[in-house]
Parts: sequence; C-alpha cells; structure tokens
Amino acid sequence: MNTLKVELGERSYPILIGEGLLHQPELLRQHVPGRDILVVSNTTVAPLYMASLVEAFSGSRVVEAILPDGESHKTLTTVARILDVLVANRFGRDCTVIALGGGVVGDMAGFAAACYQRGVAYVQVPTTLLAQVDSSVGGKTGVNHPGGKNLIGAFHQPVAVIADASTLATLPVRELRAGIAEVIKYGLLGDAAFFDWLESHMDELLAADPKALSHVIQRSCEIKAEIVGRDEREQGDRALLNLGHTFGHAVESATHYTRWLHGEAVGAGLLMAASMSQECGMVDGAQVERLRVLLERAGLPVRIDGVTPEVALEHMRIDKKALGGRMRLILLRRIGESFVTADYPEQALHRTLDAYFG
Amino acid sequence: MNTLKVELGERSYPILIGEGLLHQPELLRQHVPGRDILVVSNTTVAPLYMASLVEAFSGSRVVEAILPDGESHKTLTTVARILDVLVANRFGRDCTVIALGGGVVGDMAGFAAACYQRGVAYVQVPTTLLAQVDSSVGGKTGVNHPGGKNLIGAFHQPVAVIADASTLATLPVRELRAGIAEVIKYGLLGDAAFFDWLESHMDELLAADPKALSHVIQRSCEIKAEIVGRDEREQGDRALLNLGHTFGHAVESATHYTRWLHGEAVGAGLLMAASMSQECGMVDGAQVERLRVLLERAGLPVRIDGVTPEVALEHMRIDKKALGGRMRLILLRRIGESFVTADYPEQALHRTLDAYFG
Repeated sequence: MNTLKVELGERSYPILIGEGLLHQPELLRQHVPGRDILVVSNTTVAPLYMASLVEAFSGSRVVEAILPDGESHKTLTTVARILDVLVANRFGRDCTVIALGGGVVGDMAGFAAACYQRGVAYVQVPTTLLAQVDSSVGGKTGVNHPGGKNLIGAFHQPVAVIADASTLATLPVRELRAGIAEVIKYGLLGDAAFFDWLESHMDELLAADPKALSHVIQRSCEIKAEIVGRDEREQGDRALLNLGHTFGHAVESATHYTRWLHGEAVGAGLLMAASMSQECGMVDGAQVERLRVLLERAGLPVRIDGVTPEVALEHMRIDKKALGGRMRLILLRRIGESFVTADYPEQALHRTLDAYFG
Repeated sequence: MNTLKVELGERSYPILIGEGLLHQPELLRQHVPGRDILVVSNTTVAPLYMASLVEAFSGSRVVEAILPDGESHKTLTTVARILDVLVANRFGRDCTVIALGGGVVGDMAGFAAACYQRGVAYVQVPTTLLAQVDSSVGGKTGVNHPGGKNLIGAFHQPVAVIADASTLATLPVRELRAGIAEVIKYGLLGDAAFFDWLESHMDELLAADPKALSHVIQRSCEIKAEIVGRDEREQGDRALLNLGHTFGHAVESATHYTRWLHGEAVGAGLLMAASMSQECGMVDGAQVERLRVLLERAGLPVRIDGVTPEVALEHMRIDKKALGGRMRLILLRRIGESFVTADYPEQALHRTLDAYFG
C-alpha cells in the first residue's frame, strides 16, 4: 500500500492506495473516526462491498443509505434523503459519513456531510477509476441543478481517501475507459512524461492490469494533491484540473446526462481543448494527433454526433465556470503544459465546435 | 457610525453600526462587491427597505427574492427556491447575495450563498434587534429540519454586516423584546457590568431609544466578534453563545416554532440555565432573582405553560448540540461568568424542567 498526503494544514488527509484495502478491517477502522457511521452507496456498488464495511465496523452503529445509480440522480432532493437518514438516526456531530461508490456517490455523500450540523467528517471509498484518480480527492462536493452541472455544493475535505484498486476488477469496461480519460487529462495538463507512459501502457490499462492501474492512480493523485494543496478553493491553478471540462459539461448537459458518462464527455472535451489550442496557433497538429490516437485507443469518443455546434455553445455558456462574465477556458501550450485564459479569438472556439459537434 | 471588525484572517469583515445607514448609497456600494446582486428579503421587510437598496445599486443588476415571513419557512425547500433564482438569472461566482431582514432571512440567504457554486459573497443587512446583536454576525447559516432546529447548514462568513439601528423604529414591540433576550444573554455569559447597565437602562430600550439601542448593538457585537474570532467553528468557547439555547430550542420545537419567537424561547431558556446552575449549587438565588426580574421587565416569558417537562426533555435531547452523546449545557458560576459542561446531576435538570414547564 502507498500513502500520499494532501497538505492543507489542519485539513490535511491521507490517500491510501493499494489492493484489497476493503478487506483490511484494521486499516478501515484506523481511518474512520466516531462510533456512528453512515455508509452512503448505490444499488450497483452496495451488493459488492457493503458487507465488508459493515463487518469491519461491527463494533459501531452502522446505518446504510442506498441511492439509485446514475448522474441523473445527483440532485438536492437525493441529498435531502441522505440528511433525512442522518436525522432519523439521531446522528451527532461526531458521526462519520462513508462514501462507497463512484463520483456521484462521493459528491452527494460529501455534500450531505458538509451540510449536516454545519459539517461532519466523511471518508471517501472510491470504487471507480474516475473517482479514485479525481473526484474523491480535493473536497469538491455537490449536486447538479436543472440549470447546470455542480451548481450547488461545498468545499469540504474528507478525513481520508481509501482507494482499493481491487474494486476495479468488477468495474464495467465502459467505466474503466471513462476513468482513463481523467488519467490522460493529468498527463496533458502537467506531466508530459506521464503522457508518454500512458501511450506505452494503454493496453495494460485496458486489460485492467493491477500494477498499471495502481501506477496511474498513484501518479494522478500525486498531481491532483499537489495542485489542491496549492489552491484549495480554485482561485488560481486548481482551474487547470478543469481541462476539457467546460467542453465536456456541455456534452453532458446537452445530452441530459444520459448518453455519455462524465469521463467520456471529458475525453472528447480534452481533444476539443487541444484542437482549439491548435486553432489559436499554440499547439502543433502532431501533438493533437497524438492525443486523438490515445483517446481512440482508450475507446473514448473523439466527436459528438447529434448535438449542433450552436446548442453546444449555449450549454458551454451556462457552465458554472462561464457564468457572470467571459467564459474562461483551459488551453494547451504543448502536451504537459496548460493554462487558464479568457483571452482567445471567438473564431477559434467556433471553428472547434464546428469540427467536433453536429 | 461605529465599525467593529470580526478578526478571522482572510475571512475578516467589518460590522457597521449606526443610524440611517440604509439611506447612504455610497456606504452600501462600498461594502457590496460584484455587479450582480440578489437581495433576499421577506414579505414584511421588503416593502419597507427594498427600494433603498435597489436605488443604491441602480448601476448594478439587482434581482429580488421575497420569501414568506416566519421561522416555519426556514427549510431546505425555501433555500432551494433562492438557488433557483440565482441559477435562473445565470449569476456567476462573482455575484453577491444581500440578506435584508431578520435572523430567518439571514440564515437562509447565507446558506444559499454558501452552497451556490460552492460559495459566493453575501452581506448581512439585519433589520431586527435579534439579527443585529446575534444571528447576522459569526457566519452560522442554515435551515431547520422537521427533526430539529438548524440541523442543516454551513459556516460561511459574510463579507460585511450593516446594522442600521433606524430600522428598529418599525420593529413590532414583541420582536424588540425578543431581541433584548439575546442582549441579556451577552451580559449573563460574560459581562457583569453590561448586565448592570441593562438593569439601569431597560426602560430606554423598551422605548426604542436610538442611543440605548446603538449601545447594546455595539456591546453585543463586540462580545460576539471577540468569541467568534477565537473559535470560528465552535470547537470550544463559542458554545458559550448558546447559553439558554438548548432549553430555548426545546421550547420552540415542542411548540412547532409557532407559539414563541426564538428570542422569547431563549429568554425563558436563560432563566432555566440560571436556575439549574442554582440547583447545582453554583449560583445564589439572589442572582437568579435579578435575572427573573430583568426578563419580566423586558416582557419576556419566565415559564412555559402547555408543554410538560417530559416533552421538553425529549425535545432537548433531539437538539443538535445533544445528538450522539451526553447533552452538554451552558451553566453559570455567577452573572457574567458561564461555562460548558456535560457534568451535572440529572436530578438538577429534572427539577429545573419541573419548575418551568407544565
């Protein structure tokens, strides 16, 4: 097992990465404070791993909240249900919420923990690659609003992240590929050597090779932890982690969160960001082509049919990051170097949308 | 005008106290950042002061959210309505929410600001004595749950508090008296000289004398700002500000938030806390008697008819501060000196409830 640390002063916490962690009751108990525990999971994940947790905490009071699966349920109404369970069981300020599942479960369980009694402890136990490399780390919690993705939420750091790579053995291949999109993002935004490594090891990743997966979880979390430690509340560099996401959110929102997984939308969004950077004269075509090839090898979409460029633009403009001013985008100077900007030719954006939507 | 400061590092903010502040557009503009402004108020307060604010910000985009009046509307559903207005108007992260009203408006507008896009700026413009001396300062925001008061919320500090004492001229006398309960609390918990002053000046306060009111707002905010600056998230001393509140919340909750105003319930709760301290052998009867006389002069309830001691105890136990462990109470050593404890004879609690409920 490897342990990383997210350095945030008194809000610092460990990320534990390894195989079989959910079957180490001592380890689990060591990182979950409090006697009263609410495990939030969904109908897909709970049958697989809930029993391990309940057994590990047999000396505590454990209550379960099982949510319906899917991004379309990531709403304030579902969070209110989690809060109802906490109140109904009369949990105190010293309770702990465990998020057992993917990004949707983690975002909602974390937001419920942020709001219950103005903040109680929570532990992230991510069971998808996407959650292990991205959403479980950094304290962003929240829900979607019909008017836009993640519009309602809180910054609330977990007290620990426990990433058991063994859970990926049961992950549907489509979800594995979606997680790989976020992994590619890390190479693209800040680590060219990691991007190279992904080009050399994509086949092992797609075969769910435990060593290869452990490596990408480790390296992705290192990059994310370092950026979050510098800029917890996204007032600067943390925005780089949104590479591909303004395009990606438009893909998700225009298709009502049903057609594409978040990671798939981000995959397409990465290529759009790279391609727009090329339109702006910053990245050469060979680098964009390398990215396209890597995404295609990962089985990720590289264009979005059925959404017009005009509709895509409308949905980009209602993205959270675009509200109340000129839309800022993350663009590339080269593979491994990205930056935030609101200074780009509208033409370049339009040409990019025309090329990838329709 | 006087200015106090709540010292919280980068989250520090001023409290402006004076008369006629709502008619000083320059001053208002100086303390409200952003071009997009949502003013949250209620059906009682908006007709009185909304026009001043709209005029002061005539150069900005101002949207209004007018809520129904009363503690029974302090729910997650009402906060969701505020969030809907922010989304519908496509407000960005750089918007500002203004809370124009009493404690209920302030708690909900502040919570909406805490959750919208994971936190936007808000300014408290309290228009009741209770909000000016207590709820607008310190960053506690949130809503009630059918299972208990303030169970859902966030710590989110305002960027400024603007307390215009002139608004108290239109305050119903019952609400003035309710605010005086919180003022008495400050003397009782930590400032015997202020308690003495209140005994000498109660008549002026009840006559809504502007000088006397300005003095109590100033002194109350000084005491609160000092405690909040030491313990923002209530991990220690800040709990002293809850003097009388566990008893008071039981009064409110057992009567479904309809019969007693929050301040009235706190008034009765203060006497119960003092009386229980006497039962524990810590305060002499003469001091309890002084408190009773002062509360009666202020027109506040000194016992609660129609709720049995058993029902009151049940509601105390479901108070947020009591969940998940032995109930902690704030007790007195003498007028001006209080402390937090979970170490008291159950007998003393029962005798107190028997004496004040039924």
